[in-house]
Amino acid sequence: VKSRRVTAPLRFEDGALEVLDQRRLPANVEWITCRRPEEVAEAIRTLAVRGAPAIGLAAAYGLALAFDGGERCGEESRARFEDAARVLASSRPTAVNLFWAIERGREALAAAEAAGEEPAEALRASADALMRDQWEADRRMAELGAARFEPGDRALTHCNAGALATGGYGTAGGVLRAAWEADRLTHVWVDETRPLLQGARLTAWELDAAGIPFQVVADSSAGSLMTRGLVDRVVVGADRIAANGDVANKIGTYPLAVLARRHGVPFYVAAPLSTIDVGTPDGAAIPIEEREPSEVTTALGRPTAPAGAGAANPAFDVTPAELVSAIFTEAGVLEPPLPDAIRAVLAE
Amino acid sequence: VKSRRVTAPLRFEDGALEVLDQRRLPANVEWITCRRPEEVAEAIRTLAVRGAPAIGLAAAYGLALAFDGGERCGEESRARFEDAARVLASSRPTAVNLFWAIERGREALAAAEAAGEEPAEALRASADALMRDQWEADRRMAELGAARFEPGDRALTHCNAGALATGGYGTAGGVLRAAWEADRLTHVWVDETRPLLQGARLTAWELDAAGIPFQVVADSSAGSLMTRGLVDRVVVGADRIAANGDVANKIGTYPLAVLARRHGVPFYVAAPLSTIDVGTPDGAAIPIEEREPSEVTTALGRPTAPAGAGAANPAFDVTPAELVSAIFTEAGVLEPPLPDAIRAVLAE
Repeated sequence: VKSRRVTAPLRFEDGALEVLDQRRLPANVEWITCRRPEEVAEAIRTLAVRGAPAIGLAAAYGLALAFDGGERCGEESRARFEDAARVLASSRPTAVNLFWAIERGREALAAAEAAGEEPAEALRASADALMRDQWEADRRMAELGAARFEPGDRALTHCNAGALATGGYGTAGGVLRAAWEADRLTHVWVDETRPLLQGARLTAWELDAAGIPFQVVADSSAGSLMTRGLVDRVVVGADRIAANGDVANKIGTYPLAVLARRHGVPFYVAAPLSTIDVGTPDGAAIPIEEREPSEVTTALGRPTAPAGAGAANPAFDVTPAELVSAIFTEAGVLEPPLPDAIRAVLAE
Repeated sequence: VKSRRVTAPLRFEDGALEVLDQRRLPANVEWITCRRPEEVAEAIRTLAVRGAPAIGLAAAYGLALAFDGGERCGEESRARFEDAARVLASSRPTAVNLFWAIERGREALAAAEAAGEEPAEALRASADALMRDQWEADRRMAELGAARFEPGDRALTHCNAGALATGGYGTAGGVLRAAWEADRLTHVWVDETRPLLQGARLTAWELDAAGIPFQVVADSSAGSLMTRGLVDRVVVGADRIAANGDVANKIGTYPLAVLARRHGVPFYVAAPLSTIDVGTPDGAAIPIEEREPSEVTTALGRPTAPAGAGAANPAFDVTPAELVSAIFTEAGVLEPPLPDAIRAVLAE
């Protein structure tokens, strides 16, 4: 293997879930040991683990931690499960993957009861299976994406959509990794991604660990890089994709798509099918999450603006489907016209 | 007057030049007292004072500080002047305004010698005149720019092109101030302007002092703001304007121009005629200054990326003339087609 290592955000060892504290990266690589569901909920609540799929996986393991081992399935174990589920569900109430992971856990518990298995073991096995599924889905989308690259390509990415965010191989980060493995990528431009610097802190750390050549750039540099012909592809993840193919992703994604179109650079999105929300007809129907102004008026916690200065902090923006060259999913590549491609893949 | 105050970067009092230490803003408002040309050179060299016109003015006062007062003009004063000029010229060797200010000082000294005046007094008067000229030129371009605004307008600006940068009324910052005074501006979106945060640190500080409503935003937010119809004008300064109207300015300016065009938002540049370099035919001929990578991998001096991570740090980008709606100068508004407008204004 050409890449050195995948930086998993979670590991289950000796009956405990170890969570990589992403708030401390890249300065410190520290693992938080969680032995109870409450501790996992705290790690989720305080953003030690972030990224929708990784949050779901953490919760799945958190459910297994409600049991000591040796218990039998039955009324008491169901009650104990629901207590843990309640604690975990309240840790980040808007994270859809959290509820999805709890529902998978509930199914696993019911199956264990029917089969007369121990709940701790069954929930642990269910969480392991979710992590394997995540890895395989990420790998498929990475391979499909990497196939679009050509030797010598230089890619630009935004925010963090790597293994740290998914607990698998990564979405946009996985595409970059697979392209590098396939000798179709020579350099990555990493948008630092203000205000929370996920690019500089997390993507750079992952690429560094993998041995993939990269340079961090200010988010405002893409225009200059493209003018000079230094960007061959843009690859990003997605928070939500509307039925018509409009893509909501970290603030700053839409300007990249506009610049890419102007400079004839392909603009790719890598995201699992679960990201597509058919209940959202188009980008205009996606509410704009406005986060704390203090994230913008500070950098790594230090004030950047005068005391009392106001700020606007939209957390994501919407890239219209017409600017998206392709969406890489675990079920195949979605090509324009995206509304038709989305309808077709979801009908399968 | 509606605005509260103009935040001058320099003041000459009691025989000394006081320089506002812009490196410490906005956390600390501290003035450095310079009594000798060497101290002014140090303030320029260490970026306590920045912005091409403000640097020129600081140097002009620095020349006056070569004399104690009471000296006569003659061979000795000329030698003393040239020593000071040498020290000041080496403080930031690429700043054109520095050499221009020294040349004005040399002329003032020669005139003083012819008229039998004291050199200290003559150089001080010459520096005062330069500052007045700067103020008047800035005011003219501000009035011309403000006339393009309409009541209720919300403007977006990038970096700092205010009074702090010019020592006068400000270029882009002056336009905003004049539009506010004329009740044609209700809100300013201030790009924080990574990596050095001149927007968050300096422009926000100036607007705050002037009482003009503003919010700081991450540089990547402009697309989201424009999509939601929250930006009516973009106003920026310029580092250099080529003969064909291509504009070099702080990194991140070009993406704003591309987004403004897509959303039908006027994109204005405010800059004195001295910014136009007829020796540069177009933007492609402007060399891209690449600054220290460490500016990108830190924020306010603290590391944002893994130790040893590389970064690219182009200091400015080039906005093609076709994306510029108008250039406000002290000699009038330059309208597209810009190559013709530039040729005409320079022929006058």
